[in-house]
Amino acid sequence: MLPENVAATGADIVLGNTYHLMLRPTAERIAGLGGLHKFMHWQRPILTDSGGFQVMSLAKLRKLTEAGVKFRSHIDGSEHMLTPERSIEIQRLLGSDIVMCFDECTPFGADEQAAMESMRLSMRWAKRSREAFGGRPGHALFSIQQGGLFAELRAESAEKLRAIGFDGYAIGGLAVGEGQQAMFEVLDYAPEMLPADRPRYLMGVGKPDDIVGAVARGIDMMDCVLPSRSGRTGQVFTHRGALNIKNTRHQNDPRPLDEHCTCPACKNYSRAYLHHVFRSREMISGMLLTWHNLHYYQVLMQAIRDAISNGQFAAFEKAFTQQQSQGDIDPV
Amino acid sequence: MLPENVAATGADIVLGNTYHLMLRPTAERIAGLGGLHKFMHWQRPILTDSGGFQVMSLAKLRKLTEAGVKFRSHIDGSEHMLTPERSIEIQRLLGSDIVMCFDECTPFGADEQAAMESMRLSMRWAKRSREAFGGRPGHALFSIQQGGLFAELRAESAEKLRAIGFDGYAIGGLAVGEGQQAMFEVLDYAPEMLPADRPRYLMGVGKPDDIVGAVARGIDMMDCVLPSRSGRTGQVFTHRGALNIKNTRHQNDPRPLDEHCTCPACKNYSRAYLHHVFRSREMISGMLLTWHNLHYYQVLMQAIRDAISNGQFAAFEKAFTQQQSQGDIDPV
Repeated sequence: MLPENVAATGADIVLGNTYHLMLRPTAERIAGLGGLHKFMHWQRPILTDSGGFQVMSLAKLRKLTEAGVKFRSHIDGSEHMLTPERSIEIQRLLGSDIVMCFDECTPFGADEQAAMESMRLSMRWAKRSREAFGGRPGHALFSIQQGGLFAELRAESAEKLRAIGFDGYAIGGLAVGEGQQAMFEVLDYAPEMLPADRPRYLMGVGKPDDIVGAVARGIDMMDCVLPSRSGRTGQVFTHRGALNIKNTRHQNDPRPLDEHCTCPACKNYSRAYLHHVFRSREMISGMLLTWHNLHYYQVLMQAIRDAISNGQFAAFEKAFTQQQSQGDIDPV
Repeated sequence: MLPENVAATGADIVLGNTYHLMLRPTAERIAGLGGLHKFMHWQRPILTDSGGFQVMSLAKLRKLTEAGVKFRSHIDGSEHMLTPERSIEIQRLLGSDIVMCFDECTPFGADEQAAMESMRLSMRWAKRSREAFGGRPGHALFSIQQGGLFAELRAESAEKLRAIGFDGYAIGGLAVGEGQQAMFEVLDYAPEMLPADRPRYLMGVGKPDDIVGAVARGIDMMDCVLPSRSGRTGQVFTHRGALNIKNTRHQNDPRPLDEHCTCPACKNYSRAYLHHVFRSREMISGMLLTWHNLHYYQVLMQAIRDAISNGQFAAFEKAFTQQQSQGDIDPV
């Protein structure tokens, strides 16, 4: 999608990936070209992650020390080092509005000892990130709570972060394979450990029902590739749940993806057309399905905000769950 | 690109491929869904080719007889038959506004005997296409002159087509590998063999200088994949000639593709950005470069029409050739 079309769906913030951008085209190149806002033609706020997550999931030959993480690029094998100081510097070069502390995303399955050591390393890195960030009026620094699935570790992490003081507080180390039930169990206690007067940000979430459940538990912000990645792979979100456009049941269907939706994909195209261009690997498939999914997510978030404002969130959540459980409309 | 954005560049007609659409999603399916205009959300005219060109260039195990061409799909190997009657039927099912006669595109390198036999077969098929088309008010049937690089065969072909009578006359069998000089040599005589009061349509052309040279020789219409295919592969057309965005010289270049251009790619993005998203294989690369190229082609065609209207085409052609020969701007 073009950035102006993303903005028109209602998006206020986009996320830039430190790991990807430091490797290509490099933070220094983007800075030389006037920063990421100008480079990518996005005038609204940009949040950047710290690079920590992708270093662990994408990079090769990682070596983690107290100083940081040395790794090789998954693109060309070149060697790089990310430290709290370098991550903050990269995010400054990009011109990020909301900067994330460099942390280690504790992997799913870590036992309590491993989760504790990982969390304490991230807390020392949070302090170094805070010092490296300094004071930058108009820019925010968010920290990231870790501690795996262990309430005592989450509490210790929150206490350490509050003692340092940040503009916002993320919850990290979730949505890494633990499943929705385990994630919700952590969210039943983790958000309230963080300051109520600051944004509480759940990183890397998620499906529509993950979002509604997270908001119910006190989350204010999320980020996820799901609307756009799903758009490219044919998964479509509607008020009756998800569907996959590649399924043969759509090939003669003259109806829109979602009869309640006002996005360009639903206003102008049938399921039959969207099925055809997906199967034919036409770029317009990814364009239209991503547009629809981002539109759906924005409508969902607006409905959530409205429900909270009106004191009707519980009723909203019940109606949402009932609608989603209907499943897709019957085939033609 | 979305159809509404293609229309906004100034495009009045798009071309639909009979071969591709008959195989997937099939002409009958598109007819059942209300026709190609509705299916693809394009309200302006649609010209459809006859399928003859792609059958010869893409299909497997072709067998050509007087009746038509039997072939196997390049997608799934299924067997199909295209005849003049079936091609016209498919184009009717699609809802085409400008229908092309089914012909054999004589391959480059054919000797005079082969070109004559191929041309005469296409002329018999043109007659069958005319009979199959019947009278369809508001819809046009165009025929296709063949005859390879041989003036006498082109004359015989033109005479046979004029005797049948069509709404427009295409010149086929060019832009198939013969090179610009050989093509222009044919265009020095072929267009004037066709009625002056009907559109003369050069199929499958071309680069900007091919178009200007063809118009100079009497051509009114052309079609080509070049603006969009080049957009996907990184070739960019500007008033100073073509450039390739993947070249490293662009990686730090803050300037637009073409300083004279008002398309979204040139208004909002640097060469450095477009280089980055091309190298990163982001879909936005193909989107923006296609948009730029289509915009460039529309501006070029408007300038050609204006020059003809003002009686200044010769001066236009000279200035165009001079500008194109400048080559791209110097690197930063």
